[in-house]
Amino acid sequence: MHVHLRQDDMLRNVTPFTARQFVGAVCMPNTLPPVDSVERYDRYCAEIRAAAEPYAFEPYVPLFFHEGLTREVLAPARERLFGVKLYPAGVTTNSEAGVSELAKIEPVLDVMQDLDLPLLVHGETNGYSHDREREFVGVYDHIAKTFPKLRITMEHISTVEAAAFLDRHENVFATVTLHHLLYTMDDLLGGMWNPFMFCKPIIKSPKDRAALRDLVLSGHPKVMFGSDSAPHTEVAKRTEGAAGCFTAPVLLPCLAQFFEEHDALDRLQAFVSDHAQRIYRVTPPKREVLLEEATWTVPPRYGSIVPVNAGQVLRWRVAG
Amino acid sequence: MHVHLRQDDMLRNVTPFTARQFVGAVCMPNTLPPVDSVERYDRYCAEIRAAAEPYAFEPYVPLFFHEGLTREVLAPARERLFGVKLYPAGVTTNSEAGVSELAKIEPVLDVMQDLDLPLLVHGETNGYSHDREREFVGVYDHIAKTFPKLRITMEHISTVEAAAFLDRHENVFATVTLHHLLYTMDDLLGGMWNPFMFCKPIIKSPKDRAALRDLVLSGHPKVMFGSDSAPHTEVAKRTEGAAGCFTAPVLLPCLAQFFEEHDALDRLQAFVSDHAQRIYRVTPPKREVLLEEATWTVPPRYGSIVPVNAGQVLRWRVAG
Repeated sequence: MHVHLRQDDMLRNVTPFTARQFVGAVCMPNTLPPVDSVERYDRYCAEIRAAAEPYAFEPYVPLFFHEGLTREVLAPARERLFGVKLYPAGVTTNSEAGVSELAKIEPVLDVMQDLDLPLLVHGETNGYSHDREREFVGVYDHIAKTFPKLRITMEHISTVEAAAFLDRHENVFATVTLHHLLYTMDDLLGGMWNPFMFCKPIIKSPKDRAALRDLVLSGHPKVMFGSDSAPHTEVAKRTEGAAGCFTAPVLLPCLAQFFEEHDALDRLQAFVSDHAQRIYRVTPPKREVLLEEATWTVPPRYGSIVPVNAGQVLRWRVAG
Repeated sequence: MHVHLRQDDMLRNVTPFTARQFVGAVCMPNTLPPVDSVERYDRYCAEIRAAAEPYAFEPYVPLFFHEGLTREVLAPARERLFGVKLYPAGVTTNSEAGVSELAKIEPVLDVMQDLDLPLLVHGETNGYSHDREREFVGVYDHIAKTFPKLRITMEHISTVEAAAFLDRHENVFATVTLHHLLYTMDDLLGGMWNPFMFCKPIIKSPKDRAALRDLVLSGHPKVMFGSDSAPHTEVAKRTEGAAGCFTAPVLLPCLAQFFEEHDALDRLQAFVSDHAQRIYRVTPPKREVLLEEATWTVPPRYGSIVPVNAGQVLRWRVAG
C-alpha cells in the first residue's frame, strides 16, 4: 500500500518486481512533475499498467495534494480516483506558521471528506530528524478531529508515538514498511555507513521498532503493509546521498521469514492484503501468489539499483 | 588533543594541516598495525615529526591499550611516554561479559596509575548507536572510582550524559570535537545523506550539542579541544562507508567563528591549549598562531580527501 514506481525507464525497470508479488499497490505520485491532476492521473495509471504486463496489476495512485484540488476538479472523477497524498512541507505542530498552513489545506480536506476520498500523509515536520514524526502526531490529531469521517493513513510509521496514536481516532490508519519492521538505525550507521538503508522517515531505535512489531504481529486491523520501496540508482545513492530503500524484489520472502520467525505466518495475508481492501474499500483482481520454502541469494544489484539485503540468502521464494 | 594522522602517504599529506595550526597534538595510535609498543611509539613519533617539517611539532602519542602493557614495558620508558588509549571493544556496563572484560584491563590501569600515565578512552559500548556513550558512563564511573589517581580523558564526548558526568570525579576530563560542537545529526541525514559528516561517535541531537556548548563556552577547566580529525579518501567515504570527519584544515578558523558568535573569543586559547597543558602536564615548544579576520573558501577537496565544510566561506583565516 505504498510504493514508488518512478517514471520512464525506471518505471519500466522496477514495476515488474511489484507486479509479480502483488495484484495491486498504492503507487505514489511524487514523480517529476507530480501526479497532481486528473489528466496526469489517468496517464500515470496507464503507464503503470503497461509497465506491469504481462501481470494484471491495479495501480492505486493518490493525487499529489495541492490547494487547487477543488470540488470541481475532484467530484467529476470521484469514481475512478483513489485518494490524495499529502506531503506537508512546512507544517509544524505548535507554530503559528504551522497552524496557518494547516488552515490553508482544510478546504481540500473538507471536499475529500464529502467525497469519501482517503487522505494519505507523509507525517513529518521540519524539525530535528528523530522528532519529525513524533512532532507531527499533533497534526494528525487535529485533522482527525476536524474531519471525523475522513479516512487518514499515517504512511510508513516509524515511532512509538505514531504507533500509540493509531487507536486514538476511528478514522486513522497506518502503513508499516519492511525496513522499519526489520531494522534499526544501527543497520544504517552502527558500523560502516550503509547508503542502501538510508530513507525517510529515518529508521529509528529498537524501542520504536518493537512498537511497530507489536502492532503488526498482533494483526492490528488498522495496519497495512506499505513497502515504501523507493528506487534510486547506485550512483545517486552513493554520490548524491539520495533517500530511499529499494525493497521491491525481496518483500514477500522477507515478510514470510519475519512472520514465520515470530510464529505469525497466519497473519501475513491480512497484513499485506485483507486489511487494505477493507480500509480502502477496493477490490483488486484476484490472484494467488505462492510462496515456497527455498533458499535464494539476493543479487548484488538489479541493473543500476542496489536492493536492500543485496547478497543475503533468503529462506522463502515467490514461486513461478 | 585528538587527531588521526594515519600513516605513510596519508600521514605526509595530512600532518601539515595540523602542524600549521597547532604546536603539538595528541596523535592517536590506531594505525595498521597499531602503535602498541615502545619501539613502534618511538618510530611513529619520529615519522610524525618528519611529516610536520618545517614546523616544529610535538606529537603526543598514547600507546594502543592491550594487556601486554606491563610495568616491565611501561616503567623504563615512562619519561618519554604520553599515555595509553583504550578502545574497549566488547566492554558493556551491565553484562557479566562486560565486567569480566573490565577486570582483565585493571592490572594495566593499576600500573598506569602508579606511573601517572593518563588513560584516554573511546567510551562507547557495543549497544545501540545512540546509546553507546550514555551506556559507557557507568564504565567511566567504575574506573574513576577504582583508580582515583588515574587521569582519565573521555574522548570526543557527544552526549548530555557524558557532559553531566564530567564533574562527578576529580580525575575525569574530556575532549570535545569541532563537529560535535557545531552540528547535529540533521547535518548528516536530515536532508540528503552527507558522508563527510559520518563519524563515531555519531553526531547527536540538538540537546546533546547544547550540553557540549555549555561546557565549552563556560570555559570549563576540565574540557580540552580534541578535533578527532579523521581523514579517509573520498572513495572510502562514498563506497566503503568509512567513519571519520576530516576537519584539520578548518579547525582554528571554525572555532574562532564559533567562539566569536557566542561572544567568548577570550576563551578560545584556553580551550585549544592551556587546559590541555595543565591537565596532561606537557610543555610544548612556544609558537604564536595568528588568526586574522579574512574570508576564504574551503576547497572542495585536498588531494583525495574531502574536508568538512568543503565549499563554505569562512570568516577567519590562519595568517602566514
